[in-house]
Amino acid sequence: MTNLLPVLDRASANVSASLERLFELVRIRSISTDPAYKAECRRAAEWLVTELRSLGFDATVRDTAGHPMVVAHHEAGRPDAPHVLFYGHYDVQPVDPLDQWDHDPFEPAVRDMPGGRRIITGRGTSDDKGQLMTFVEACRSYKETTGSLPCRVTILFEGEEESGSPSLKPFLEANASELTADFALVCDTSMWDADTPAIAAGLRGLVGEEIVVRAADRDLHSGYFGGVAANPVHILADVLAGLHDADGRVTLDGFYEGVEETPAAILADWEALGCTAESFLGEIGLSIPAGEKDRSVPELTWARPTAEVNGITGGYTGEGFKTVIAAEASAKISFRLVGKQDPARIRDSFRAYVRSRLPADCSVTFHAHGGSPAIQLPYDSPLLNKAKAALSAEWPKPALVIGMGGSIPIVGDFQKMLGMESLLVGFALSDDRIHSPNEKYELRSFEKGIRSWIRILAALENR
Amino acid sequence: MTNLLPVLDRASANVSASLERLFELVRIRSISTDPAYKAECRRAAEWLVTELRSLGFDATVRDTAGHPMVVAHHEAGRPDAPHVLFYGHYDVQPVDPLDQWDHDPFEPAVRDMPGGRRIITGRGTSDDKGQLMTFVEACRSYKETTGSLPCRVTILFEGEEESGSPSLKPFLEANASELTADFALVCDTSMWDADTPAIAAGLRGLVGEEIVVRAADRDLHSGYFGGVAANPVHILADVLAGLHDADGRVTLDGFYEGVEETPAAILADWEALGCTAESFLGEIGLSIPAGEKDRSVPELTWARPTAEVNGITGGYTGEGFKTVIAAEASAKISFRLVGKQDPARIRDSFRAYVRSRLPADCSVTFHAHGGSPAIQLPYDSPLLNKAKAALSAEWPKPALVIGMGGSIPIVGDFQKMLGMESLLVGFALSDDRIHSPNEKYELRSFEKGIRSWIRILAALENR
Repeated sequence: MTNLLPVLDRASANVSASLERLFELVRIRSISTDPAYKAECRRAAEWLVTELRSLGFDATVRDTAGHPMVVAHHEAGRPDAPHVLFYGHYDVQPVDPLDQWDHDPFEPAVRDMPGGRRIITGRGTSDDKGQLMTFVEACRSYKETTGSLPCRVTILFEGEEESGSPSLKPFLEANASELTADFALVCDTSMWDADTPAIAAGLRGLVGEEIVVRAADRDLHSGYFGGVAANPVHILADVLAGLHDADGRVTLDGFYEGVEETPAAILADWEALGCTAESFLGEIGLSIPAGEKDRSVPELTWARPTAEVNGITGGYTGEGFKTVIAAEASAKISFRLVGKQDPARIRDSFRAYVRSRLPADCSVTFHAHGGSPAIQLPYDSPLLNKAKAALSAEWPKPALVIGMGGSIPIVGDFQKMLGMESLLVGFALSDDRIHSPNEKYELRSFEKGIRSWIRILAALENR
Repeated sequence: MTNLLPVLDRASANVSASLERLFELVRIRSISTDPAYKAECRRAAEWLVTELRSLGFDATVRDTAGHPMVVAHHEAGRPDAPHVLFYGHYDVQPVDPLDQWDHDPFEPAVRDMPGGRRIITGRGTSDDKGQLMTFVEACRSYKETTGSLPCRVTILFEGEEESGSPSLKPFLEANASELTADFALVCDTSMWDADTPAIAAGLRGLVGEEIVVRAADRDLHSGYFGGVAANPVHILADVLAGLHDADGRVTLDGFYEGVEETPAAILADWEALGCTAESFLGEIGLSIPAGEKDRSVPELTWARPTAEVNGITGGYTGEGFKTVIAAEASAKISFRLVGKQDPARIRDSFRAYVRSRLPADCSVTFHAHGGSPAIQLPYDSPLLNKAKAALSAEWPKPALVIGMGGSIPIVGDFQKMLGMESLLVGFALSDDRIHSPNEKYELRSFEKGIRSWIRILAALENR
């Protein structure tokens, strides 16, 4: 068994150099959803390949119909060690509205905060470049200290996680034998709090839909046509307002099919976390829970499905006023899924609902933006319990087993297509402002994240 | 009494030169609602002053807090002739979406259409540069033929009609004695059809409101916060969906106070026009009336109040998908008023309604965009009947007395502040696409519009 301490010490001693490497990656503007940044996505993939090759990985950029994948392989020091697949994504969210950033999102820096905290600022520092680099730097520390790795490691870095992962399924299918390991390690999740690491045993699924409602064949003057011509913004408002009932439940036909009530014992554990509507919403300037009635915040965010409008636009939205009735209006809507909810059936039900609300002389177009079922790791999994012990040794408080509100479709795909369970460990915090202006990652998350992977790889070395 | 025929003949003979002058004015990008075009608005005012001075008017550009006014005076040939105030506006609507224009909106041209029709294309050709130039060119024809004008003429050109006329009331108040005439002539309305001129005896008023709903203090990840945090797009959809009941009536408290039913005889005249939902909506690709049930199209657009959403925006509206819950969402809403509906009370009622739908931890900001009551000219007015006879002499079919769906706040201000009635005569057609891409004005409207004003001024010469 590997002697852990020198590996941990070297990781801590080298954290400044590790940071410099992360900064190089953050400076690459790999916004996958915006075609203008296509070349930057490739540049991020190439940077990672160069980095992994310098660590002795057999690493390559792999083309897809969209942004490329990075695949890398490294043997273990011991031939009987387990084989793990590590997954992360190098693409990031768009940065608008840019005027709400305090610093250039693509010029990362470590900044001192009140109370001695130090944060790394920039787009992708938390989601997911900072997180994936914790694993790469853990491997570096092993290589530099022991000359080898405790497990056989395959790495898969994706460049389309923030834009629905259109190339992922075909890629897994075409490279199934190369990518299949004993299990997957995924680093794209959060801690419970700054002192308490967490392993996500459940992940909500996602269905993304964009709808465009069209009425007249041109924009109209609301003086001439108002009160007679159909207004697509009114139709859209009616559609969206009808998605929830007075108790906050989603009204779509069959929406709750496959949703199981969470066991009482688990709900009781979650209640004990003291995460109330006041504490959870207080951090973002709110106080009143807006979803399903009579359920706790952990249950609502980890174990209940939702429907949220992520964007809406129609008519004149510039400065001043324009008395126009728009020809069309559109909205982007996402559904979070739990249990055995079927993404395809939810999409169909939503589309049927929208059509049922549409006047006969208007039309609607639907655009699918990704779809993945929820996934759930058994609470008695040995993988989960080894990782729990390793994390508990690194951090001030013992690791928690929780659920996650966000979707990581890859985990469902690993399960379904490669037959692998996934261990979800991440070091983000809930105030990292991922997907928002002023994204940051705790410097402590970065350093102890590297050390955590060193401990987890050691714990996994013996089957 | 002036001999009319030489004046009419000269107008027709000079129409090409009249067009060249209109083109010069259309080329000036006087978009009043967009601060980027401030200098262009002033340039339009200066162009008009130069033009009017060349016709012997005492014309000046008058500064306001916003875009300038143009005021010009000319005595009548006979000292006992009446004094008329002519009103038009030189500002135009924005031109977005620019990619839906077949030609540059600011490079006007005459284009041949099927059936021998000829149209003038460009932003403002119909609303209102083409229309105001019919009056200027009518004056030119009088001056060049007779050396004088049959009436004493004051001209007022405004530059903020398309952006709520914020400077108009203070300007009328400060210059009341200079601007008060026996009555006003306003050229900003439409014909009934290409052969039938119309005088608008009733005009709907307008209340414009912009609302910004704010929830969390930042944009949120819909995976972490979805189902618990308030979503401002949901709140906005609920507010907007609740504005109308199942019968298409506006639900605001007291909204229908001051709305009188139109006399049966007038409704019967309007019914006889044969303007059905099929014919009216068929032109714009629709077929089903969307407003109040069991009322004819003329009644709905001329004599009933409305609420229309003119614009909405919130969250991510770019390419692709972003799983965000927006910090804020906003909408622009306009109300059309009739009868004695009070703009201030409607605005108050709307704001109270919005607040009543708002969760206690969210906030809303309101921005007023103009407000004016409806106005109504008595059906037995001599002014109206002289103009009706003059128009009937110029066009293939007799002039109609109708209502108008669009708002021209100036007419209410003339009535309230200067004690003047207004005669509303215009030569636009319903397919002129005003406020939309591909705005046009009929060449026939331009030429016969000039001739119509020549006839109307002659009819008004004798009190």
